[in-house]
Amino acid sequence: MSATDMTASEIAAAVAAGSLRAVDAVGAALDRIAAHDEDVGAFTDVLAERALARASAVDAARMAGKPLGPLAGVPFAVKNLFDLQGIPTLAGSRINRDDPPAARDAALVERLEAAGAVCLGGLNMGEYAYDFTGENLHDGPSCNPHDLGHMSGGSSGGSGSAVAAGFVPLSLGSDTNGSIRVPASLCGLFGLKPTFGRLSRARSFPFVASLDHLGPLARSVADLALAYDVMQGPDPDDPHCAGRPAEPVLPRLAEGAEGLTIAIAGGYFAEHGEPEAFAAVARCAAALGADRVVELPEAHRARAAAFLITTTEGAALHLERLRRRPGDFDPAVRDRLIAGAMIPASFVAQAHKFRRWFQGAVAELFETVDIVLAPATPCRAPKLGQAVMSVGGEMLPVRANLGLYTQPISFIGLPVAAVPVWTAGERLPIGVQVIGPAWREDLVLRVAGALEAMGIAAAPVARL
Amino acid sequence: MSATDMTASEIAAAVAAGSLRAVDAVGAALDRIAAHDEDVGAFTDVLAERALARASAVDAARMAGKPLGPLAGVPFAVKNLFDLQGIPTLAGSRINRDDPPAARDAALVERLEAAGAVCLGGLNMGEYAYDFTGENLHDGPSCNPHDLGHMSGGSSGGSGSAVAAGFVPLSLGSDTNGSIRVPASLCGLFGLKPTFGRLSRARSFPFVASLDHLGPLARSVADLALAYDVMQGPDPDDPHCAGRPAEPVLPRLAEGAEGLTIAIAGGYFAEHGEPEAFAAVARCAAALGADRVVELPEAHRARAAAFLITTTEGAALHLERLRRRPGDFDPAVRDRLIAGAMIPASFVAQAHKFRRWFQGAVAELFETVDIVLAPATPCRAPKLGQAVMSVGGEMLPVRANLGLYTQPISFIGLPVAAVPVWTAGERLPIGVQVIGPAWREDLVLRVAGALEAMGIAAAPVARL
Repeated sequence: MSATDMTASEIAAAVAAGSLRAVDAVGAALDRIAAHDEDVGAFTDVLAERALARASAVDAARMAGKPLGPLAGVPFAVKNLFDLQGIPTLAGSRINRDDPPAARDAALVERLEAAGAVCLGGLNMGEYAYDFTGENLHDGPSCNPHDLGHMSGGSSGGSGSAVAAGFVPLSLGSDTNGSIRVPASLCGLFGLKPTFGRLSRARSFPFVASLDHLGPLARSVADLALAYDVMQGPDPDDPHCAGRPAEPVLPRLAEGAEGLTIAIAGGYFAEHGEPEAFAAVARCAAALGADRVVELPEAHRARAAAFLITTTEGAALHLERLRRRPGDFDPAVRDRLIAGAMIPASFVAQAHKFRRWFQGAVAELFETVDIVLAPATPCRAPKLGQAVMSVGGEMLPVRANLGLYTQPISFIGLPVAAVPVWTAGERLPIGVQVIGPAWREDLVLRVAGALEAMGIAAAPVARL
Repeated sequence: MSATDMTASEIAAAVAAGSLRAVDAVGAALDRIAAHDEDVGAFTDVLAERALARASAVDAARMAGKPLGPLAGVPFAVKNLFDLQGIPTLAGSRINRDDPPAARDAALVERLEAAGAVCLGGLNMGEYAYDFTGENLHDGPSCNPHDLGHMSGGSSGGSGSAVAAGFVPLSLGSDTNGSIRVPASLCGLFGLKPTFGRLSRARSFPFVASLDHLGPLARSVADLALAYDVMQGPDPDDPHCAGRPAEPVLPRLAEGAEGLTIAIAGGYFAEHGEPEAFAAVARCAAALGADRVVELPEAHRARAAAFLITTTEGAALHLERLRRRPGDFDPAVRDRLIAGAMIPASFVAQAHKFRRWFQGAVAELFETVDIVLAPATPCRAPKLGQAVMSVGGEMLPVRANLGLYTQPISFIGLPVAAVPVWTAGERLPIGVQVIGPAWREDLVLRVAGALEAMGIAAAPVARL
């Protein structure tokens, strides 16, 4: 098996066992990137020299008999809103290219590398993360490796396409309204959006402070858990992630879905979608023996409120850039931010009030169930450049609506694993959200792992 | 001495000793209200029957040898935004007169009465608390008892005038941007705005959820501490006041200002005021041996940010009322709320961001000092109806600017005692803010008590 077909856990095990050198794992990744990334468009910055130096250090440590971290020799890459020492943090923009190079790696990059992983560089993304398509005006689209004419999903588009293309077994993305779960769904990957405040956002470029989450994408649930456990734990550099101690999940994966009460989200989450979205949820539910339907009340309002908070906080963040360099934005992003800059604060005050109510109502629901299943996207990956799509019999704009099922969930910070489901004869997958109560990443990853173990969910490398 | 000249502590001691009956203390208060409140305008609702019944119950308990609370027989009254069972909660408005009567007293009213105090009714206030003057279009102004042609200050105007007039020794007010400290300054009273989140707001009518504080006004520091201690402690009915255990202050008052590092606020707080404001601060500082000047950085921005949050959150709260009953508002309040309803949310997002910064910067300053002194108002009480005032050589609108020194402090929730300072030959007093770090009401009340003990600050009953 080529190293680029291996999962992170497999690479780490092989490196630890001495059957694979870290430089070879990294070299194979760099070769595959060189061969195919011109077509895929996953990377904006390949840091080959840095990566090979670190891989050599891992190999040297092993030769010297030193203890290796749990991710020894595992290549990974990060959405280009994570700081990487020595290069500017683009956040998908043209404007940030004029920023000084980052002085230090993002906190999560440091934690992964401290565990032996090797960062290969920065990944393409939708401008300033305000995107669900994975298309970028400045860097070109990150394409769907399973069908290059289709979208990867966004805004962590490169994070999805790099893992699906077999460039790296692990990537990091960010998720404000669905930006990890949408590319996971469209590219056929496992993705984890942890509880709000769980993983440090220190030294990453923000979008919406009260909604931003960082998290991993991978081709196996064990890889998600492995990376997540390494990244967990308080960080004094991020006030939102200062309190909660680490609660390791990997040792608990084997418990599976046994004994858990699993329900299907009805109402809003059973409408507005194509049949394949509901079929994927139904397959997961059947495999898990889940037949109870629960309703997250007022989910459509939750989406509207998330939109209001996103566009206005985003506008506040970018106000100076909008004033100084309007012509350097992607017009589709700029115009939404300008509109956001003019939304009255009294609307947003009401959105925050509703959010507290919704958080309470959903927490109450989770007193009676452990996990709720819902579609991750309303349909499979649209074509590149496609502006409208058919959703439940209506034609809707693609850009705004790919996240219609993810947005109400991140709005209240709940942990979610996206799991990829495939249909025979279809080249493209579609994802299902496995949603848990706050701080219960263990439950969502156990259920995701059960679906993987039963063969319902899988994340193969794309043939390029 | 007439019971209406006594402080709360004196009344409670006399009632406990059997030298004063609670019904007589309450009766004397009701008589003085009946004789003078037509001129003063402090009360909107006098609940004589309820008060006399409770006073009788206190007397009966004493006769039966039952233990009495620390406020036994003490008459008090509350700003009419506190719920009082059986009457609608006006919050100074005309619109709320159509509300159903409150089903239960506000949490702080219940706590005071559980300690033996006797509520005499609801007090006049600026409409919906958006006011610094104490004038009310529907109920008439609450006048300054020391000179009836002058303002009481607002929005807790009746809370100030009722205590200064000798109607009650103790009142409760609310303070969003200065609404306890401004009337305390103008009416010559001690007032306490506790740390944000310290006292329960359950069953009170809100103005700005993220800035509202409730607190007492009285004619002695011991009375503030007595009432404050009785009202402290978590309340499951107020999520903002659910955690912090009570930290009694009364037993610590005797420690005085000994050993504390006390500074004077410079910069913004040494400008924009009339000479009497700075003279009052200088007298307090001299008595306390404080000569160090510290600067609260960017205080003018803090005021601007507090304004943005106030007007937009206030507008969000009243949006439906503005739509349905615009003609029933005081036009001066309505027009500011309508303007607030149209302020862009992106501005407010920046105000919140600045607030976090300012909170940190001031917390750092408090690592080097225990107390900061600043003026409470830029001048003594303006005349009723006065629209502009001279402040530091400029003519400024009265309504917006009486709170220019209080607003930056409540913005970050710090505890403040207002202490009243008098100049020979002047009928009207002016207040000084004694500001402490978060959760250190003990320090601000110790210093306020020291100023009272030295005769620098005093709160006499007005001769009517």
